[in-house]
Amino acid sequence: MATIPESAREVLESGALAHLVTINRDGSPQVSCIWVGLEGDEIVSAHLFPQQKLRNIERDPRVTLSLEGTGSNPIGMREYLVVHGRARIEEGGAPELLQELAQTYVGPGTKFPPMDDPPPGRRLRISVERIGGLGPWAQ
Amino acid sequence: MATIPESAREVLESGALAHLVTINRDGSPQVSCIWVGLEGDEIVSAHLFPQQKLRNIERDPRVTLSLEGTGSNPIGMREYLVVHGRARIEEGGAPELLQELAQTYVGPGTKFPPMDDPPPGRRLRISVERIGGLGPWAQ
Repeated sequence: MATIPESAREVLESGALAHLVTINRDGSPQVSCIWVGLEGDEIVSAHLFPQQKLRNIERDPRVTLSLEGTGSNPIGMREYLVVHGRARIEEGGAPELLQELAQTYVGPGTKFPPMDDPPPGRRLRISVERIGGLGPWAQ
Repeated sequence: MATIPESAREVLESGALAHLVTINRDGSPQVSCIWVGLEGDEIVSAHLFPQQKLRNIERDPRVTLSLEGTGSNPIGMREYLVVHGRARIEEGGAPELLQELAQTYVGPGTKFPPMDDPPPGRRLRISVERIGGLGPWAQ
Protein backbone atom coordinates (compact mmCIF):
# COMPACT_ATOMS: atom_id res chain seq x y z
CA MET A 1 0.00 0.00 0.00
CA ALA A 2 1.34 3.43 -0.94
CA THR A 3 1.57 6.42 1.38
CA ILE A 4 -0.45 9.38 0.11
CA PRO A 5 1.62 12.58 -0.18
CA GLU A 6 0.32 15.63 1.67
CA SER A 7 -0.48 17.47 -1.59
CA ALA A 8 -2.73 14.59 -2.67
CA ARG A 9 -4.36 14.33 0.78
CA GLU A 10 -5.38 17.98 0.44
CA VAL A 11 -7.21 17.24 -2.82
CA LEU A 12 -8.87 14.13 -1.35
CA GLU A 13 -10.20 16.20 1.57
CA SER A 14 -11.07 19.33 -0.43
CA GLY A 15 -14.67 18.49 -1.31
CA ALA A 16 -13.72 17.77 -4.94
CA LEU A 17 -15.90 15.06 -6.50
CA ALA A 18 -14.12 11.73 -6.99
CA HIS A 19 -14.78 10.22 -10.43
CA LEU A 20 -14.79 6.53 -9.52
CA VAL A 21 -14.12 3.97 -12.23
CA THR A 22 -15.04 0.33 -11.76
CA ILE A 23 -15.02 -2.44 -14.36
CA ASN A 24 -18.23 -3.91 -15.75
CA ARG A 25 -18.59 -7.64 -16.43
CA ASP A 26 -18.02 -7.06 -20.15
CA GLY A 27 -14.76 -5.19 -19.44
CA SER A 28 -16.16 -1.73 -20.16
CA PRO A 29 -15.63 1.05 -17.60
CA GLN A 30 -18.40 2.19 -15.24
CA VAL A 31 -18.07 5.74 -13.86
CA SER A 32 -19.85 7.63 -11.14
CA CYS A 33 -18.94 10.66 -9.05
CA ILE A 34 -18.80 10.08 -5.31
CA TRP A 35 -17.88 11.83 -2.07
CA VAL A 36 -14.68 10.63 -0.43
CA GLY A 37 -12.78 11.07 2.79
CA LEU A 38 -9.56 9.75 4.32
CA GLU A 39 -9.07 7.37 7.21
CA GLY A 40 -5.33 7.07 7.68
CA ASP A 41 -3.90 6.13 4.29
CA GLU A 42 -7.17 4.71 2.97
CA ILE A 43 -9.86 6.47 0.98
CA VAL A 44 -13.40 5.88 2.26
CA SER A 45 -16.85 6.40 0.76
CA ALA A 46 -20.43 5.51 1.70
CA HIS A 47 -23.31 4.03 -0.28
CA LEU A 48 -26.87 3.68 1.02
CA PHE A 49 -28.24 1.49 -1.76
CA PRO A 50 -27.09 -1.42 -3.95
CA GLN A 51 -25.37 0.00 -7.01
CA GLN A 52 -23.62 -1.27 -10.14
CA LYS A 53 -20.26 -0.01 -8.86
CA LEU A 54 -20.54 -2.16 -5.72
CA ARG A 55 -21.45 -5.24 -7.74
CA ASN A 56 -18.47 -4.56 -10.00
CA ILE A 57 -16.12 -4.23 -7.02
CA GLU A 58 -17.35 -7.54 -5.60
CA ARG A 59 -16.19 -9.14 -8.85
CA ASP A 60 -13.04 -7.05 -9.51
CA PRO A 61 -11.67 -4.82 -6.71
CA ARG A 62 -9.48 -2.68 -9.01
CA VAL A 63 -10.69 0.92 -8.97
CA THR A 64 -9.42 4.23 -10.25
CA LEU A 65 -10.38 7.62 -8.87
CA SER A 66 -9.75 11.02 -10.43
CA LEU A 67 -10.27 14.37 -8.73
CA GLU A 68 -9.64 17.91 -9.89
CA GLY A 69 -7.20 20.12 -8.02
CA THR A 70 -7.36 23.89 -7.86
CA GLY A 71 -3.98 24.84 -9.36
CA SER A 72 -2.64 24.83 -12.93
CA ASN A 73 0.74 24.04 -14.44
CA PRO A 74 2.89 26.79 -16.03
CA ILE A 75 1.14 26.46 -19.42
CA GLY A 76 -2.36 26.68 -17.98
CA MET A 77 -3.36 23.00 -17.72
CA ARG A 78 -5.42 22.32 -14.61
CA GLU A 79 -4.07 19.91 -12.01
CA TYR A 80 -5.78 16.61 -11.32
CA LEU A 81 -5.10 13.61 -9.16
CA VAL A 82 -5.46 10.00 -10.29
CA VAL A 83 -5.45 7.22 -7.68
CA HIS A 84 -5.20 3.55 -8.59
CA GLY A 85 -6.22 1.24 -5.79
CA ARG A 86 -8.13 -1.74 -4.54
CA ALA A 87 -11.49 -1.44 -2.85
CA ARG A 88 -13.11 -3.60 -0.27
CA ILE A 89 -16.67 -3.42 0.95
CA GLU A 90 -17.74 -3.11 4.58
CA GLU A 91 -21.33 -3.62 5.65
CA GLY A 92 -23.08 -0.74 7.42
CA GLY A 93 -21.94 2.69 8.56
CA ALA A 94 -23.00 4.58 5.45
CA PRO A 95 -25.30 7.20 7.03
CA GLU A 96 -22.70 8.23 9.61
CA LEU A 97 -19.97 8.67 7.00
CA LEU A 98 -22.30 10.52 4.61
CA GLN A 99 -23.29 12.88 7.41
CA GLU A 100 -19.60 13.62 8.03
CA LEU A 101 -18.73 14.06 4.32
CA ALA A 102 -21.79 16.25 3.66
CA GLN A 103 -20.27 18.93 5.93
CA THR A 104 -17.55 19.37 3.30
CA TYR A 105 -19.41 18.42 0.10
CA VAL A 106 -22.68 20.28 0.74
CA GLY A 107 -21.87 22.64 3.59
CA PRO A 108 -21.62 22.97 7.37
CA GLY A 109 -24.83 22.08 9.19
CA THR A 110 -26.17 19.83 6.41
CA LYS A 111 -28.28 16.82 7.46
CA PHE A 112 -27.45 13.98 5.09
CA PRO A 113 -28.96 11.68 4.08
CA PRO A 114 -32.08 13.81 4.35
CA MET A 115 -34.44 10.95 5.31
CA ASP A 116 -35.06 10.11 8.97
CA ASP A 117 -34.45 6.36 8.96
CA PRO A 118 -31.78 5.60 6.34
CA PRO A 119 -30.64 2.02 5.63
CA PRO A 120 -27.22 1.03 7.05
CA GLY A 121 -25.77 0.73 3.54
CA ARG A 122 -22.14 -0.10 2.91
CA ARG A 123 -18.76 1.59 3.00
CA LEU A 124 -15.94 1.35 0.49
CA ARG A 125 -12.39 1.36 1.79
CA ILE A 126 -9.78 1.88 -0.91
CA SER A 127 -6.10 1.10 -0.41
CA VAL A 128 -3.86 3.18 -2.66
CA GLU A 129 -1.42 1.43 -4.97
CA ARG A 130 -0.28 4.20 -7.29
CA ILE A 131 -0.83 7.92 -7.72
CA GLY A 132 -0.62 9.92 -10.95
CA GLY A 133 -2.26 12.73 -12.88
CA LEU A 134 -0.91 16.26 -13.20
CA GLY A 135 0.34 18.09 -10.12
CA PRO A 136 2.94 17.99 -7.35
CA TRP A 137 1.75 14.48 -6.35
CA ALA A 138 2.68 13.06 -9.79
CA GLN A 139 6.46 13.18 -9.61
CA MET B 1 -25.00 7.13 -32.50
CA ALA B 2 -26.98 9.09 -29.91
CA THR B 3 -27.98 12.73 -30.19
CA ILE B 4 -26.57 14.82 -27.35
CA PRO B 5 -29.24 16.80 -25.48
CA GLU B 6 -28.72 20.55 -25.21
CA SER B 7 -28.11 20.39 -21.43
CA ALA B 8 -25.24 17.96 -22.00
CA ARG B 9 -23.82 20.00 -24.90
CA GLU B 10 -23.57 22.96 -22.51
CA VAL B 11 -21.42 20.92 -20.11
CA LEU B 12 -19.25 19.59 -22.96
CA GLU B 13 -18.56 23.16 -24.14
CA SER B 14 -18.25 24.74 -20.69
CA GLY B 15 -14.50 24.34 -20.20
CA ALA B 16 -15.03 21.54 -17.65
CA LEU B 17 -12.25 18.94 -17.73
CA ALA B 18 -13.26 15.63 -19.28
CA HIS B 19 -12.08 12.63 -17.22
CA LEU B 20 -11.35 10.17 -20.05
CA VAL B 21 -11.29 6.46 -19.26
CA THR B 22 -9.66 3.99 -21.63
CA ILE B 23 -8.94 0.32 -21.00
CA ASN B 24 -5.40 -0.97 -20.46
CA ARG B 25 -4.23 -4.25 -21.96
CA ASP B 26 -4.67 -5.98 -18.58
CA GLY B 27 -8.29 -4.78 -18.35
CA SER B 28 -7.60 -2.10 -15.74
CA PRO B 29 -8.86 1.45 -16.34
CA GLN B 30 -6.56 4.26 -17.49
CA VAL B 31 -7.71 7.82 -16.66
CA SER B 32 -6.54 11.22 -17.75
CA CYS B 33 -8.19 14.62 -17.87
CA ILE B 34 -8.45 16.22 -21.29
CA TRP B 35 -9.92 19.23 -23.07
CA VAL B 36 -12.89 18.51 -25.30
CA GLY B 37 -15.05 20.25 -27.85
CA LEU B 38 -18.02 19.37 -30.04
CA GLU B 39 -18.20 18.96 -33.79
CA GLY B 40 -21.81 18.20 -34.61
CA ASP B 41 -22.79 15.26 -32.40
CA GLU B 42 -19.21 14.05 -31.89
CA ILE B 43 -16.81 14.93 -29.09
CA VAL B 44 -13.33 15.91 -30.25
CA SER B 45 -9.97 16.22 -28.49
CA ALA B 46 -6.36 16.78 -29.54
CA HIS B 47 -3.11 15.08 -28.54
CA LEU B 48 0.35 16.27 -29.57
CA PHE B 49 2.33 13.25 -28.41
CA PRO B 50 1.96 9.44 -28.27
CA GLN B 51 0.18 8.53 -25.06
CA GLN B 52 -1.07 5.42 -23.29
CA LYS B 53 -4.69 6.43 -23.87
CA LEU B 54 -4.18 6.50 -27.64
CA ARG B 55 -2.50 3.09 -27.64
CA ASN B 56 -5.41 1.76 -25.57
CA ILE B 57 -7.97 3.19 -28.01
CA GLU B 58 -6.16 1.57 -30.95
CA ARG B 59 -6.75 -1.77 -29.22
CA ASP B 60 -10.22 -1.10 -27.71
CA PRO B 61 -12.21 1.95 -28.88
CA ARG B 62 -14.63 1.93 -25.94
CA VAL B 63 -14.22 5.11 -23.89
CA THR B 64 -16.07 6.79 -21.06
CA LEU B 65 -15.92 10.50 -20.25
CA SER B 66 -17.16 12.23 -17.11
CA LEU B 67 -17.45 15.98 -16.62
CA GLU B 68 -18.73 18.05 -13.72
CA GLY B 69 -21.69 20.35 -14.20
CA THR B 70 -22.32 23.50 -12.23
CA GLY B 71 -25.72 22.73 -10.69
CA SER B 72 -26.80 20.46 -7.82
CA ASN B 73 -29.84 18.28 -7.23
CA PRO B 74 -32.41 19.15 -4.52
CA ILE B 75 -30.41 17.35 -1.77
CA GLY B 76 -27.13 19.08 -2.63
CA MET B 77 -25.41 16.47 -4.82
CA ARG B 78 -23.46 18.09 -7.64
CA GLU B 79 -24.45 17.30 -11.22
CA TYR B 80 -22.13 15.40 -13.52
CA LEU B 81 -22.31 14.05 -17.02
CA VAL B 82 -21.13 10.58 -18.07
CA VAL B 83 -20.72 9.80 -21.77
CA HIS B 84 -20.15 6.29 -23.09
CA GLY B 85 -18.86 6.19 -26.63
CA ARG B 86 -16.44 4.90 -29.19
CA ALA B 87 -13.34 6.79 -30.20
CA ARG B 88 -11.47 6.82 -33.46
CA ILE B 89 -8.10 8.39 -34.12
CA GLU B 90 -7.37 10.87 -36.89
CA GLU B 91 -3.82 11.82 -37.83
CA GLY B 92 -2.83 15.49 -37.59
CA GLY B 93 -4.73 18.64 -36.71
CA ALA B 94 -3.90 18.64 -33.00
CA PRO B 95 -2.29 22.12 -32.72
CA GLU B 96 -5.21 23.84 -34.44
CA LEU B 97 -7.81 22.19 -32.20
CA LEU B 98 -5.76 22.82 -29.05
CA GLN B 99 -5.47 26.49 -30.00
CA GLU B 100 -9.27 26.65 -30.32
CA LEU B 101 -9.97 24.75 -27.06
CA ALA B 102 -7.40 26.81 -25.11
CA GLN B 103 -9.57 29.90 -25.59
CA THR B 104 -12.16 28.21 -23.34
CA TYR B 105 -9.94 26.06 -21.10
CA VAL B 106 -7.18 28.60 -20.38
CA GLY B 107 -8.66 31.92 -21.49
CA PRO B 108 -9.20 34.23 -24.45
CA GLY B 109 -5.99 35.20 -26.28
CA THR B 110 -4.04 32.12 -25.13
CA LYS B 111 -1.41 30.74 -27.52
CA PHE B 112 -1.50 26.95 -27.19
CA PRO B 113 0.52 24.84 -27.54
CA PRO B 114 3.11 27.36 -26.38
CA MET B 115 5.95 26.09 -28.61
CA ASP B 116 6.48 27.59 -32.08
CA ASP B 117 6.67 24.43 -34.18
CA PRO B 118 4.41 21.79 -32.61
CA PRO B 119 4.09 18.30 -34.08
CA PRO B 120 0.86 17.57 -36.03
CA GLY B 121 -0.27 15.07 -33.38
CA ARG B 122 -3.59 13.30 -33.55
CA ARG B 123 -7.25 14.00 -32.89
CA LEU B 124 -9.80 11.82 -31.14
CA ARG B 125 -13.34 11.80 -32.44
CA ILE B 126 -15.83 10.18 -30.08
CA SER B 127 -19.29 9.06 -31.16
CA VAL B 128 -21.75 9.02 -28.29
CA GLU B 129 -23.63 5.81 -27.52
CA ARG B 130 -25.16 6.50 -24.11
CA ILE B 131 -25.38 9.38 -21.64
CA GLY B 132 -25.79 9.15 -17.88
CA GLY B 133 -24.65 10.67 -14.61
CA LEU B 134 -26.68 13.04 -12.47
CA GLY B 135 -28.48 15.97 -14.08
CA PRO B 136 -31.19 16.89 -16.59
CA TRP B 137 -29.34 14.87 -19.29
CA ALA B 138 -29.74 11.63 -17.28
CA GLN B 139 -33.46 11.01 -17.63
